[in-house]
Amino acid sequence: MAQVTIGNSEFDRDTAVVRRAPGHYEADLSAGWTIIHAVNGGYLLALMGRALGDALPHPDPFSVTAHYLTASVPGPAVIRTEVVRTGRTMSTGTATLVQFEEDGSEVERLRVLAAYGDLDTLTDDVRTTAKPPAIPPYEHCLGTENAPGGQPAVPGSTAIADRLTIRLDPATCGWAVGAPSGNGEMRGWFGLADGRDPDPLSLLLTVDALPPTAFEIGLTGWVPTVELTTHIRRRPAPGPLRVAITTRNLAGGFLEEDAEVWDSADRLVAQSRQLARAPRSASTLA
Amino acid sequence: MAQVTIGNSEFDRDTAVVRRAPGHYEADLSAGWTIIHAVNGGYLLALMGRALGDALPHPDPFSVTAHYLTASVPGPAVIRTEVVRTGRTMSTGTATLVQFEEDGSEVERLRVLAAYGDLDTLTDDVRTTAKPPAIPPYEHCLGTENAPGGQPAVPGSTAIADRLTIRLDPATCGWAVGAPSGNGEMRGWFGLADGRDPDPLSLLLTVDALPPTAFEIGLTGWVPTVELTTHIRRRPAPGPLRVAITTRNLAGGFLEEDAEVWDSADRLVAQSRQLARAPRSASTLA
Repeated sequence: MAQVTIGNSEFDRDTAVVRRAPGHYEADLSAGWTIIHAVNGGYLLALMGRALGDALPHPDPFSVTAHYLTASVPGPAVIRTEVVRTGRTMSTGTATLVQFEEDGSEVERLRVLAAYGDLDTLTDDVRTTAKPPAIPPYEHCLGTENAPGGQPAVPGSTAIADRLTIRLDPATCGWAVGAPSGNGEMRGWFGLADGRDPDPLSLLLTVDALPPTAFEIGLTGWVPTVELTTHIRRRPAPGPLRVAITTRNLAGGFLEEDAEVWDSADRLVAQSRQLARAPRSASTLA
Repeated sequence: MAQVTIGNSEFDRDTAVVRRAPGHYEADLSAGWTIIHAVNGGYLLALMGRALGDALPHPDPFSVTAHYLTASVPGPAVIRTEVVRTGRTMSTGTATLVQFEEDGSEVERLRVLAAYGDLDTLTDDVRTTAKPPAIPPYEHCLGTENAPGGQPAVPGSTAIADRLTIRLDPATCGWAVGAPSGNGEMRGWFGLADGRDPDPLSLLLTVDALPPTAFEIGLTGWVPTVELTTHIRRRPAPGPLRVAITTRNLAGGFLEEDAEVWDSADRLVAQSRQLARAPRSASTLA
C-alpha cells in the first residue's frame, strides 16, 4: 500500500479539484465527510482553498472567509474562482461553489473571499503571547470508541468520524454523558485517520471539525455556521494538532466560536472565528 | 443648529452614498477621516455597509468581511454591490469600492463579503460569559489633548481625531510617552465628536478607530490591515462605547487584532478580528 503523505491521502483525494478552464473547477463532494447528512463546513472550505490555491499566483491561504448559503449534498459540484488582485507578496480572490438541481439549475452553496500568500516567506520572528491550551495527554483524552454504548446513536451518522482521529479533553466531554459543564469550550487532539500530516489546507478542515461548544453549554441540535473566517499563520509541523474552541457571546439566537490550532512545535498555526445560529432547542441534556 | 441624531451627523454625511442604478452607488471619501493621508479602514467599512444595507433586503450588518487591496484617497468613489442570496431572516451580498486614475481607469480599493439581517428580530436571551473590559472611568482616561506637548507631531495629521472622542486607558498609553508596556493591548472609551449615538453602521467604524496595539508592544510605523471581519451582535444602546483590543499572535511579520465593543448597557455589541502586517520597523520607542 502506498505511503500516506501530504498529496496522497483520503483528504487529498476527497478535496481534489479538476480545472476545466481558467477559473472553472469540477469537484465531487464526498459522502465521507458528513455528520448525518450534512457535509462538514471545514471540508468544503478546504475544497475551495484548493481551487483558490490553483487560481491565484500565491500558494497558501492566509485569510479565508466563507459564507455558507445553502446545505451542500454529496455529489458533483462546480467551483468558480475570480482573481480580485495580485500583488508581490499577496493575492486576493473569490470563489463560489454551486451544485445542480434535477432541472439543471444552479444553487450556490458557499461564497468565499480570501487572501493568499506564501507561508515559506514569513519571517522567523515569533512574539506570540498566547499559550497552547492545557489539554491532557493524548492517552487521557476520549474518542468515539469511548462513547457510552460504543456505537453512535444513529448508525452511519458519523462518516466524518472515520476520517478523523479526535480525542477530546474529558473536561469538555460532559455533554456526551448527559452532564455538560455549562462552559462554552471544546478542546482536543486532532489528526487525520490515515495518518496524513497537517498542511495549510487541512487546517481549513481542522477549525470546523470538533463538536460544537453549544453541546457543552447544554444545548442540543444543529449549530449552523453563517460565516467562518480562518487565518493560517504558519505551515504546521508534522504530527498531531491541538484544537481549543471557545464561545463567550451566546446571545440573541447567535453565538461565536473562536478556534485556535496549535502544532507539535507549540506554534499557533491557525485562528478562526465563526458566527453560527444557536440551536433552536434550548433544552438541556441533563 | 439642528440636533445631531443618527441620520443627521458628520458620520452620516460623510458615509452617505447615492444610488445611481441598482447595485451602483456614488460616494465621496471624506478627508475628515484620515490619519495623515490614509483613509481610515473603519470609515471605508461603514461606507460599504451603508451601500449594502440599501442593496440587500435586510437592513443590518451581521457579519462583514473586508479585504483592503490598495490605499484609498479622499475624493470620488464608486461602490458596486451584488446580491448573492436572499433568505427569510438573512441575506448575503458583496461590494467593491473603486476609485479612478487620471486616465479614467478603475482601481479597486476594497472588496467586501457580508451577511445582513434584522437586529430588531434577535431573541432576548443573553448568555454572554465575556465580561466588559476593566477601563478606568472616562475622566481618568487620556485623550489627544493630554498628549505631551499638546499639539500633534505632524500638523493636520489627525483629521480623524477631530471626528472622534477617544479616551484611552492610561495602562495602554505608555507608547505615547515613550514607555510602551510591551503588552498587545489597547483600550478606551469611544464616541463620535458631534455627539451622535452609536448604531450598527458606526460600530463598523469603531472596531478600527483606536491606535494600533503594535504601538503598545513597542513597534512604530504603519500596521496595514489585510482583512477585517466584524460581527455586529446587537443594536447598541445610546451613549459612550468601550473598546478593548488584544493582540496575542504577533509572528512571521503579521499580527491579529481582536476588538470587542461594549455599550452603555454592558452588552457586547460587536466583535472583530483583523489580520494586519506588522510594522517593518521593529525599533522600540523606549
